[in-house]
Amino acid sequence: MPVIRDIGDGSQDALLVRVQAGGYTGWGECEASPLVSLASWICPMSHSACKPLIASVLGQELNDVSDIHRINALVRENSYDLLQTDHTLSGIDIALWDLLGWRLGEPVYRLLGYKTAFAKTPYASQLFGDDPHETYEHAVAVRKMGFRAAKFGWGPYGRGDAETDRHHVEAARGGLGEDVTLLVDVGTVWGEDVDRARARIPALEANGVGWIEEPFACGALDAHQKLAAETSIPLAGGEGCHNIHQAKTMIVHAALGYIQIDAGRIGGITIAKQAADYASARGVRYVNHTFTTHLALSASLQPYAGLEGDCFCEYPFSPSILARELTKESLALDPQGRIQLPEKPGLGMDIDLEVVAKYVVDTEIRVGGRLLYRTPQINGGGEHGHLGAPHAASLTAPRFEDG
Amino acid sequence: MPVIRDIGDGSQDALLVRVQAGGYTGWGECEASPLVSLASWICPMSHSACKPLIASVLGQELNDVSDIHRINALVRENSYDLLQTDHTLSGIDIALWDLLGWRLGEPVYRLLGYKTAFAKTPYASQLFGDDPHETYEHAVAVRKMGFRAAKFGWGPYGRGDAETDRHHVEAARGGLGEDVTLLVDVGTVWGEDVDRARARIPALEANGVGWIEEPFACGALDAHQKLAAETSIPLAGGEGCHNIHQAKTMIVHAALGYIQIDAGRIGGITIAKQAADYASARGVRYVNHTFTTHLALSASLQPYAGLEGDCFCEYPFSPSILARELTKESLALDPQGRIQLPEKPGLGMDIDLEVVAKYVVDTEIRVGGRLLYRTPQINGGGEHGHLGAPHAASLTAPRFEDG
Repeated sequence: MPVIRDIGDGSQDALLVRVQAGGYTGWGECEASPLVSLASWICPMSHSACKPLIASVLGQELNDVSDIHRINALVRENSYDLLQTDHTLSGIDIALWDLLGWRLGEPVYRLLGYKTAFAKTPYASQLFGDDPHETYEHAVAVRKMGFRAAKFGWGPYGRGDAETDRHHVEAARGGLGEDVTLLVDVGTVWGEDVDRARARIPALEANGVGWIEEPFACGALDAHQKLAAETSIPLAGGEGCHNIHQAKTMIVHAALGYIQIDAGRIGGITIAKQAADYASARGVRYVNHTFTTHLALSASLQPYAGLEGDCFCEYPFSPSILARELTKESLALDPQGRIQLPEKPGLGMDIDLEVVAKYVVDTEIRVGGRLLYRTPQINGGGEHGHLGAPHAASLTAPRFEDG
Repeated sequence: MPVIRDIGDGSQDALLVRVQAGGYTGWGECEASPLVSLASWICPMSHSACKPLIASVLGQELNDVSDIHRINALVRENSYDLLQTDHTLSGIDIALWDLLGWRLGEPVYRLLGYKTAFAKTPYASQLFGDDPHETYEHAVAVRKMGFRAAKFGWGPYGRGDAETDRHHVEAARGGLGEDVTLLVDVGTVWGEDVDRARARIPALEANGVGWIEEPFACGALDAHQKLAAETSIPLAGGEGCHNIHQAKTMIVHAALGYIQIDAGRIGGITIAKQAADYASARGVRYVNHTFTTHLALSASLQPYAGLEGDCFCEYPFSPSILARELTKESLALDPQGRIQLPEKPGLGMDIDLEVVAKYVVDTEIRVGGRLLYRTPQINGGGEHGHLGAPHAASLTAPRFEDG
């Protein structure tokens, strides 16, 4: 967006990844700082385990699912000590799945081994209002749009006194009515402070809140365990996990009812699927974390599309116009207030290149006098290509004008 | 270095951080990709929890220890969703401690609350040779230089067959003799594969290895626990931890004998000290992870300087000439094969600005036509300043020529 506001709205920018191989194109999206992720793509090598991601992606063969697993593992090995890696890898991995889906004519969820994509019940995900009245109005709007569940988070919640927070939760419940699920997201603002959480529990329980999300920092295991022992409301968390080990640790040791995975952070659809399998085997519900485009939404739903019992999904309620315009398709609510993954190949989403061209921010990185990165041309190669019969595909480089 | 080789030698580049406030200068170092960390310093804001680090550092007051804790926490809050943050913050935090030490005339370890900095027994840290004979020669060299302990890692170890690995370990033991401690670093190459670890245990036990370091990926708790149950050799790990939660998880759930913390990755001296306190209370030994300059070495020793029982320290045995030249001072072995932190203020290390000027790599980042970063002038403001009496200090910005 031309202006980025200092609020918890992650849809104000987008880092799109376009991969091309064998005449096909795939699109992905990182839930990450664009500039920092670009830098990790092309930075100079520091040592054998701190290479730019480009070293493990360009030129790789991409013919079947095993190639995606191989490329994902190769990136993590070669860039193990480069912290930004997992966020950048996520968008690349998503784009590889999309590309392979288009090439093989299958939706990604089927490439993941699921026979069916079960409909999910989206919860309208939005920020608390600046005051309880605004929260109430947001809740009324959500109800009118047919949502069966809604989540309020960030904004003032948890930062002031417990009494103000109570008013926000009561306003949300009042606006939604009794039959719409209400979820609350604390956005980690309590750090590890169980006392601050404890003070809010009575109001959350009295208003029938369905989960308490991120009361504490991701990975703060003790605090999660203590709070879980003191309330009947399930805890939700895990969006900050950027590898499978962290997700497993949260699933096993944080007393969660719901593990929330952002496919745009954890290392893509490949790692998100591993987390879904692991959670499913341990009775922890999997939920996507998504606050941006419907490309990211489709990507985030694929890893647990076939898990019928895990029926909630996060649904960005009022994302930026950038996020709304970027895809030509969107996942709309059916009359029962549910959404269904598209049966089209890949992620089933086409990117509107005119919109990309409208919002693209030209970026240029030079190191030691060499041009390492310049924003590529947007036009051309945007559509999902179908150039003749399938043939061995390998990932190719964009063209710079110099460097 | 002008040429970066594809080997596990992390000293081939260096990301120096220079902070200035109130006429004083402090130096720090990130164990991180320089370009990616620079990008995280100045990137455009994505949303309220994904800000560039500069937003939480420049202009802050820096008068006492509580200010460093405050700035550290502020960075983590404002840049929570920016993955590279912790690596970048590390060098900044280290530089803040250095600056405050110079201003208050105290070594950092005393600012951390330790009365005494106990001598540590450095282990010469180096790569395995390309073949066992080369490993043997390295071991002989280490012994002749008076080291009481040595660690071999990376290179071919763990990647081929167990028999070749046995020859490397026997060669290392043969070269060191019976009375020098031998440590082995697997560099995470076995991922989560306990079988591959198990096959090497007999040779490691037969050669009296003091610890097995990073047999698995950081955070792979199950694999660590399984292996620990099968051998009497303590496990060591944790260098990949980039926040206190991950360090605590490794200390509690990975069955470690030694927790290895890199102050240049975990969020600086501030967070490393928290990890040292936590490990110490739970009977897990704290060891620094350092493979670069003596500035990083001094920084990495401060957090556990006062823990007498935690007596090992990692000591880069043959770092690049860049890493050797960058500081004017170095921490040399005493006749007992030990090293002692300097009693000078801060980290006790002066940076050689002529060396910096010799190796500096000019970097330029432009976004949307605006110059966001250009490598600052090296000369001037390099020495630890002492400009008059202490007065309220706030962190100031470097000057760019445009943008």
